[in-house]
Amino acid sequence: MSLAAVEIARGVAPQAHPAPARIALLGTGTVGSAVLSRLVSWDASPLGRRVQLVHVANSRHAVSDRSGLAPGEATQRLALAPQASSIEAVDAALHGDGVRVVVDATASEIVAERHAHWLAQGIHVATACKIGQGTSLSRWHAIRAASAVGHAGYGDSATVGAGLPLLRSLRELRAGGDRIHAIAGVLSGSLAWLFNNYDGMRPFSALVRQARDAGYTEPDPRDDLSGEDVRRKLLILARAAGVELDADEVSVTSLVPPELAILSKEALDGALPALDTPLRERFAAAYKRGEKLRFIARLQDGRAKVGLESLPGNHPLAGGAGTDNRVAIWSDRYPSQPLVIQGPGAGAEVTAAGLLDDVLRLAR
Amino acid sequence: MSLAAVEIARGVAPQAHPAPARIALLGTGTVGSAVLSRLVSWDASPLGRRVQLVHVANSRHAVSDRSGLAPGEATQRLALAPQASSIEAVDAALHGDGVRVVVDATASEIVAERHAHWLAQGIHVATACKIGQGTSLSRWHAIRAASAVGHAGYGDSATVGAGLPLLRSLRELRAGGDRIHAIAGVLSGSLAWLFNNYDGMRPFSALVRQARDAGYTEPDPRDDLSGEDVRRKLLILARAAGVELDADEVSVTSLVPPELAILSKEALDGALPALDTPLRERFAAAYKRGEKLRFIARLQDGRAKVGLESLPGNHPLAGGAGTDNRVAIWSDRYPSQPLVIQGPGAGAEVTAAGLLDDVLRLAR
Repeated sequence: MSLAAVEIARGVAPQAHPAPARIALLGTGTVGSAVLSRLVSWDASPLGRRVQLVHVANSRHAVSDRSGLAPGEATQRLALAPQASSIEAVDAALHGDGVRVVVDATASEIVAERHAHWLAQGIHVATACKIGQGTSLSRWHAIRAASAVGHAGYGDSATVGAGLPLLRSLRELRAGGDRIHAIAGVLSGSLAWLFNNYDGMRPFSALVRQARDAGYTEPDPRDDLSGEDVRRKLLILARAAGVELDADEVSVTSLVPPELAILSKEALDGALPALDTPLRERFAAAYKRGEKLRFIARLQDGRAKVGLESLPGNHPLAGGAGTDNRVAIWSDRYPSQPLVIQGPGAGAEVTAAGLLDDVLRLAR
Repeated sequence: MSLAAVEIARGVAPQAHPAPARIALLGTGTVGSAVLSRLVSWDASPLGRRVQLVHVANSRHAVSDRSGLAPGEATQRLALAPQASSIEAVDAALHGDGVRVVVDATASEIVAERHAHWLAQGIHVATACKIGQGTSLSRWHAIRAASAVGHAGYGDSATVGAGLPLLRSLRELRAGGDRIHAIAGVLSGSLAWLFNNYDGMRPFSALVRQARDAGYTEPDPRDDLSGEDVRRKLLILARAAGVELDADEVSVTSLVPPELAILSKEALDGALPALDTPLRERFAAAYKRGEKLRFIARLQDGRAKVGLESLPGNHPLAGGAGTDNRVAIWSDRYPSQPLVIQGPGAGAEVTAAGLLDDVLRLAR
């Protein structure tokens, strides 16, 4: 049924949703906190009746209440909770029937390794963490297989583009019989911002410091500049497009020179100017040709690569502003002019919104 | 459940879809023929088992077969069909249980008026025709009410952007609690092509003739230049965004001067040059400011307008190529940098694909 009709049907038949979906939120960092704020904002709306928070945990503490936790009090109750956090506590908190969803707002390997376990038991998973689907192909297969066994959904909208309709649009095209020919895009909000603002005059290292201080990059900007985060996003897109690549099949060209890669976090800041000369030269060469530098992820002819590219000024991926993500998709249906989806692809608020969109879809 | 999981679940539990959806295709023009070609291409794929064509009709003939019509033979059988077409024949052809879908590839007022009747009986409707949802507000309300009563879905992806994920993305944002602040876009493939190619040198009338001969415009190009087609698309978008406007609440500034509007189709071609001077002057004024002319539909602060605008060269809606549609959506979640969706928004193939995407969704 179309979403419009689903909304209508729900309007006339509320009994279609007898009990709210029970939610366990893992992670109370910027994204997890934004999820809690969004849940608080739902209290007054009909959306609030469709979900019930029963468990909240971070790496140190966990608090459970099968009768429901008030999202506005969860952080405080968590701080006071004596109970140390354990992954098994999630299973206990969600034990029983009805729709149950784990919301993964962590960056935890241990939690990602657990996704398949929950799915196999019929517990839906909505995740902003790319470790589950964006690392080894075997784990990706395990997640899909467990999803099938448990007839549980895996909500991953927030893993690429922070909830932009990227994965959903890819899957809708394939569901309609389309084969995906190619995907190319700017998948990192921080690298988008850096190259949307780099003018070849101001040292690149100064921009990196500014982006880091503004929270656009990770605390260690090498995590963004290395392209490893983009590798995971491209793996997730490629696999959703039907190209089942393993992690090492994406060729990533890092922006971090070897001499910076080996430094300690403490020593890094002083050494950042090592980025400046090579990037100034690349910018000058591109500028001469009227082109723009963009950090691009590409999937084409079954091959995947990530790195800095010089694009014509009128190229569909050369535009965009701020931290916008921008993805072009070519398929049977769009063989020449691609489908292009663009918008804010980073930030705690949009990521939390994407996570909760998935929760609502899974709860239907 | 996420689409990925739906696909998986279907893979392991085909019995979830015991019988194919029975389809009645209305209209065998360019879009209807493209629907039939696409159904033929599904014969070899699993998609073919999910739909069964049981009725095909155009304004003159109709052919029904409850045991199924071969899509590849439908046109021929239709030509040989003695039976005159009647709207009631659709009900008879779809009589019975199971998932039933009317696919409206007509431009027929009579068929559009019938949408609510089918929905109320639990028959899904997938339509490329904008007359149902894009004209009077009362008919739009009737369609939504009937959809609720019959618990039947109304597939309208093909009515705006020829299947681009526009309406779906709007509804997903609202389903997640977002309020839509504004929508602005290029919604006409033909007007997009005209202003992507108009350079102020070649007479605009010559471009119009070229677009008409290439099939980008309707046989009577005034149907595009008047902006009436865009009015319907903006009404559909606005209503989907929660702004329930009636048709006369969209202010449309036509590109057709009064002296052309009154001419017969035959007299039109010779008189087209009347377009040239006013548009050359507007182009020159925009060019001086480094701006571009685009035919824009806007919804903002509850008001809707359609007409030619002069936009800065770097404006998100100034780009695009060919017949691309391009729509920007601002919402609670995207208050400053909008979500932008762009791609081919006209043509029989993408329109047919959008229609059949909806059929598959409705059949789930």
